[in-house]
Amino acid sequence: MIRTIEWKGDGVHIIDQTALPDELRIIRCEDHERLAKAIECMEIRGAPAIGVAAAMGIALAAKNCNDEKELYEQLWSAYNRLKSTRPTARNLFWALERMRKVWEDCLKESGNGLKEKLINEALAIAEEDVAVCRAIGKNGSELISNGDGVLTHCNAGALACVEHGTALGVIRTACEEGKKFVVYSCETRPLLQGARLTAFELKHEKIPFKLITDNMAAYVMKKGLVKKVIVGADLITRHGDVVNKIGTYGLAVLAKHHNIPFYVAAPLSTIDLNASPESVTIEERSPSEVTHIRGVRIAPEGTEVINPAFDLTPRQLVSAIITEKGVSYPPYDLSIFFRQGNN
Amino acid sequence: MIRTIEWKGDGVHIIDQTALPDELRIIRCEDHERLAKAIECMEIRGAPAIGVAAAMGIALAAKNCNDEKELYEQLWSAYNRLKSTRPTARNLFWALERMRKVWEDCLKESGNGLKEKLINEALAIAEEDVAVCRAIGKNGSELISNGDGVLTHCNAGALACVEHGTALGVIRTACEEGKKFVVYSCETRPLLQGARLTAFELKHEKIPFKLITDNMAAYVMKKGLVKKVIVGADLITRHGDVVNKIGTYGLAVLAKHHNIPFYVAAPLSTIDLNASPESVTIEERSPSEVTHIRGVRIAPEGTEVINPAFDLTPRQLVSAIITEKGVSYPPYDLSIFFRQGNN
Repeated sequence: MIRTIEWKGDGVHIIDQTALPDELRIIRCEDHERLAKAIECMEIRGAPAIGVAAAMGIALAAKNCNDEKELYEQLWSAYNRLKSTRPTARNLFWALERMRKVWEDCLKESGNGLKEKLINEALAIAEEDVAVCRAIGKNGSELISNGDGVLTHCNAGALACVEHGTALGVIRTACEEGKKFVVYSCETRPLLQGARLTAFELKHEKIPFKLITDNMAAYVMKKGLVKKVIVGADLITRHGDVVNKIGTYGLAVLAKHHNIPFYVAAPLSTIDLNASPESVTIEERSPSEVTHIRGVRIAPEGTEVINPAFDLTPRQLVSAIITEKGVSYPPYDLSIFFRQGNN
Repeated sequence: MIRTIEWKGDGVHIIDQTALPDELRIIRCEDHERLAKAIECMEIRGAPAIGVAAAMGIALAAKNCNDEKELYEQLWSAYNRLKSTRPTARNLFWALERMRKVWEDCLKESGNGLKEKLINEALAIAEEDVAVCRAIGKNGSELISNGDGVLTHCNAGALACVEHGTALGVIRTACEEGKKFVVYSCETRPLLQGARLTAFELKHEKIPFKLITDNMAAYVMKKGLVKKVIVGADLITRHGDVVNKIGTYGLAVLAKHHNIPFYVAAPLSTIDLNASPESVTIEERSPSEVTHIRGVRIAPEGTEVINPAFDLTPRQLVSAIITEKGVSYPPYDLSIFFRQGNN
């Protein structure tokens, strides 16, 4: 299996997700600045993958520092640069804090072998992500039944993580277990992660699916074709409010109207116990993402748009949250997963 | 003002709506076959405009017939060809029946001047459409208030009619009356009538608007930016079920969830008193409309899609129906508009 992101001797290798599905192109990032740019322009995207990329960015900054005296300064510089790339996905900040803790602990302990420790921590974050996605898949697959129609949005697949995926990880595991079902993949404008990336993964796995435009979701639900909705997340609050790709909230409302369960699959690193619906920053991206599709203009010159990259789905619309530690049901208090002995 | 469709000495001139907004290109249709093709490939679209085009197609068939003995046969042939172009929009069948009545009445009365009568009927249908849209605009504008955010879907504008429009006719009239409001135009995948055509019209009229992807509708509603939703229709049943562009039903569910009125604006020629939700034919169009956008592939080769061109919004989700005869509220019995003295 190809990995979305890998630490190699000559840098960090990532799959260029802007080139899919036309081309499977690998980008080699030799320094944290190149990785930061890759996160910004969404060559790599998906909350867990962004977290791993940020961690590897710090590891690259450490590796590339030739003057030990400047190491801490350069780590802070990389930390701040990577932190500024995208404002919403919790995993980015979670991974950066985890890396920071390594060098701060090292400072206290006189700093021996810090570079190696940072590289090892980044590698550990990547490996944990694989295991976590497998556990999410196993926990969530119980919710998928033979004969289901499963609707998903955006790409919460292998390409959003290191491999396997979160929402698509559940779908993958259910398929591995021999369950037969059909996936409805919403194309996910503006950047078409559903049409480009989820379709690419499902086709590769030979999982039966149909691609729909985002505005067909209500139609397939009313037809009775959809039995479950499952999506990933970029941030989840302690009480189960879910920030995810724009369009998710509308799907949750439509699922509620049609009495269809609405599931969210994400690692604990996506949960921010201190966040509230009011505190969340929704990234606003370039207008050209809306006025153009894959380089082709679709609206008159001078057209004003809005382009929020995410929306917030209130806890009341979320039927269950699937994590590596288990499945949680309303009313949510996700802090249980973080208590001693549980993490 | 440019008209969407016009009867000229050398044929029927239509604006090529597949070329907008890049180019304002006029297509000259010299026979009914060219007009039929234009309807099929959506060079002309929008329920009222399709009706006018079908009527003018019959008129062209009459005009082009050089052998009086073959006239009725050729009219029937054109009638059947035009009837087969698209299955959903009521106005197509309404206009064809109206044209047929002209030649059947003429048969009874010995048939003098039939060609001229057919041309005049087609011209009358076009002129009536202009007056009807104006009346819809006037009746509907009372529902628009200063400071509103008005969300619309697809294009129910001048380009969907002869001029002025239905849903966009209401918006145009409200603007002419000096009301200040903002329009949110859903881009309307797959064929992007919102991004291409509604944005083109609103820009031309200098009516403030913002373009959004279809999956942002719930977001702008939750933000409180949308006070009204107004759309056109391709078919309305006696009791107010509305068939319109795919995505309309989802918007109606979202509007209900956010307590936002959901209005439908359409001429009486869109109402089919005999239709029921079960009897409606939803057109399924080519998969390539979903897998490609303006010629550019967006999904992997071999991707399966569904592509219903329309959906049905149940009467329970429709707050009011605006026609040229007035505004109707639930519970709907639209037959009142067709009673003696009222039509």
